[in-house]
Amino acid sequence: MSICYVNGKYLLKKDSNVSIEDRGLNFSDSVYEVIAFRKQNLLNYVKHINRLKRSLNELKINSPFSNFKSLEIIIKNLIKFNALNNGFIYLQITRGTSIRNHLFPKFSKPNVIVILYNSKDTDHFKKGVKVITIDDMRWQRCDIKTTSLLANVLGKQTAEEKGAYESIQINKQNYITEGTTSNIFFVHSDNLIQTHPSNNNILGGVTRDIVIELAKRKKFKVLEKPLNIRSLKTIKEAFLTSTTVGVVPVIKIDNLKISECKPGLVSKQLMILFKSNSKKQIKNNL
Amino acid sequence: MSICYVNGKYLLKKDSNVSIEDRGLNFSDSVYEVIAFRKQNLLNYVKHINRLKRSLNELKINSPFSNFKSLEIIIKNLIKFNALNNGFIYLQITRGTSIRNHLFPKFSKPNVIVILYNSKDTDHFKKGVKVITIDDMRWQRCDIKTTSLLANVLGKQTAEEKGAYESIQINKQNYITEGTTSNIFFVHSDNLIQTHPSNNNILGGVTRDIVIELAKRKKFKVLEKPLNIRSLKTIKEAFLTSTTVGVVPVIKIDNLKISECKPGLVSKQLMILFKSNSKKQIKNNL
Repeated sequence: MSICYVNGKYLLKKDSNVSIEDRGLNFSDSVYEVIAFRKQNLLNYVKHINRLKRSLNELKINSPFSNFKSLEIIIKNLIKFNALNNGFIYLQITRGTSIRNHLFPKFSKPNVIVILYNSKDTDHFKKGVKVITIDDMRWQRCDIKTTSLLANVLGKQTAEEKGAYESIQINKQNYITEGTTSNIFFVHSDNLIQTHPSNNNILGGVTRDIVIELAKRKKFKVLEKPLNIRSLKTIKEAFLTSTTVGVVPVIKIDNLKISECKPGLVSKQLMILFKSNSKKQIKNNL
Repeated sequence: MSICYVNGKYLLKKDSNVSIEDRGLNFSDSVYEVIAFRKQNLLNYVKHINRLKRSLNELKINSPFSNFKSLEIIIKNLIKFNALNNGFIYLQITRGTSIRNHLFPKFSKPNVIVILYNSKDTDHFKKGVKVITIDDMRWQRCDIKTTSLLANVLGKQTAEEKGAYESIQINKQNYITEGTTSNIFFVHSDNLIQTHPSNNNILGGVTRDIVIELAKRKKFKVLEKPLNIRSLKTIKEAFLTSTTVGVVPVIKIDNLKISECKPGLVSKQLMILFKSNSKKQIKNNL
C-alpha cells in the first residue's frame, strides 16, 4: 500500500491520477525534483526547493505554494502515512489541466504530485560502475529540471542494454556534458578535480554542488570546465554524482579502464565525505 | 459533454485520467498524432497511422494495436458519441504505467488516450499570418512525433507574446528548420518551392508531404533543402502547413514583409489545391 499526494488530497497510489489533458502528459510542460530522506529527515531540502523555484520561474509556471513550508508538511505527512524511514520523494508540478493547445492556458492551476519511493540497495556501487559514451541528443535547456526526459530515458536504456550503469553524453564539440541521471567528475593525475560548469548544457545537480563544496573544504582544486573526450585517456579517476546514488566511482568508460578498474582514492574519499555530510544533516535535525 | 477513450473505455472527459506513474507524464515517454475529420470522414488516416507506427518503433514502444482497424473503429465511435461533424482527433500512446525509473519497464502496457476537439475557425488565416524567428532549442530527434514538446510550447508562446502566429526555428548553422506547430515552405522568384528535407531535424508532416505531392502534380519544382536565414530577403512567398490549419500564407517574418504583406499567388493556389484534395477524400469515402 502506498499513499501519494495529488492536488490537496492524500490518496492510494492506485487512485492517484491526473487528467488526460494535463499539460505534463501532453507537452512535458512540467518540472520535478527528487529529494532523499534518511531516518525521516529530508536531505538538502532548501537546495532542492531553490532549484524547483528556479525551474518554475524559467517556465513561467505559477508556483502552487506561496510558502514552501506547506510542501514540507505534505512531504512529512506522506513519510508518516507510508511509515518509511529511508527513501526518495518524487515531486512533479505541471502547468495544469487545459484543452490541448501549445500556448500557455490563460487560466490553469498547476497539478501537484508527490510520490514516495523506497531506498534501493546501492551498496554494490561502492565497487564502481561501467559507463558508456553516447551523443548528447538533448534540447538546449538542460539546466531546467523538466520532465522533457525522453533523450535521458533512451540514453539510460542504451547503457543498460550494453551492460553499463550509465551513459555519458558527448556534445557536438566533443565535450563531455553529464550522465543521463547523474553528473560526472574527473580526477587528474595531480588530483585536480574537473567537472562541466553549471550552464544550460547540464542540470546543476544538488549532489554535484555539495561534492564540489566538500572537495574544496578538503583543499582539492576544482575546475568547472568541460572535458574534451580526447583527454579521457589521461585521467586518473572518474565518478558520478546524483541524489539517488550519491557518489559512485567509475571504473570503465567504453573500453577504457579507469584506475585499473578499481574505485580511485579521491573518489572513495569523496564518497565517504558525502555520506558523513548526510549523516551530519540528520544529526542536526534530530 | 465530451466523451473520450482511455485504455478500452469510453468515458466522460472529466473522468478520463492516467496514473501519476504514467511514463508519458513522468518522462514524456510517449508519442501522439493529430488527425483531422470532416463530415465525419478521417483525412489522411493511413499516412497518420504510418507515421504513428514509425514513432512507436523508434521508441520501442509496443504497439497497443495489432491491427489499426480497431483504432479506426474507436475513433469512429467517438465521432458518433460526440456527434461531431468536423474536428480533430488527438491520439496519445505512452509506454505505460510503471514505478518511476528511466529504464524501460520489463512489463508495461501502453496507455492509449483519444480525445476529440472541435474545428477552430481558421478563415482569418487566408489573409496570411505574421511569424517570428527563434533559436531551434529542440532535441536531435525531431523526426519522432513525441510529447517531448516543451521547446515547441515555449516557442509558440513567444510568438503569441510578440503578436505573431508562429515561431520559425533557426538552427545553429543558421538554417530554417520548421515552425513549432507547422512546417514552412518558401517560394522563390522563379516559382521554385523550397522546404527543409525530411530528416531528424524536422517532423515530416503529413500535410507537408501532401502539399509537396500536389505542387509537383501542378508542375512546380520542389527543392527539399534547408534555407539559410540570409536567403530570406530574396524569397517571393512563404507559407506554413499543418494538419490543424492546412496551408497558411506567411506575410511577415520578423520585420521582413513578404509579398507586400499579402498572400502570394503560389501559396493561394496550394491552399485551394489542399482544400479540394481534402474534399475529394471525403467524396471518395461517401
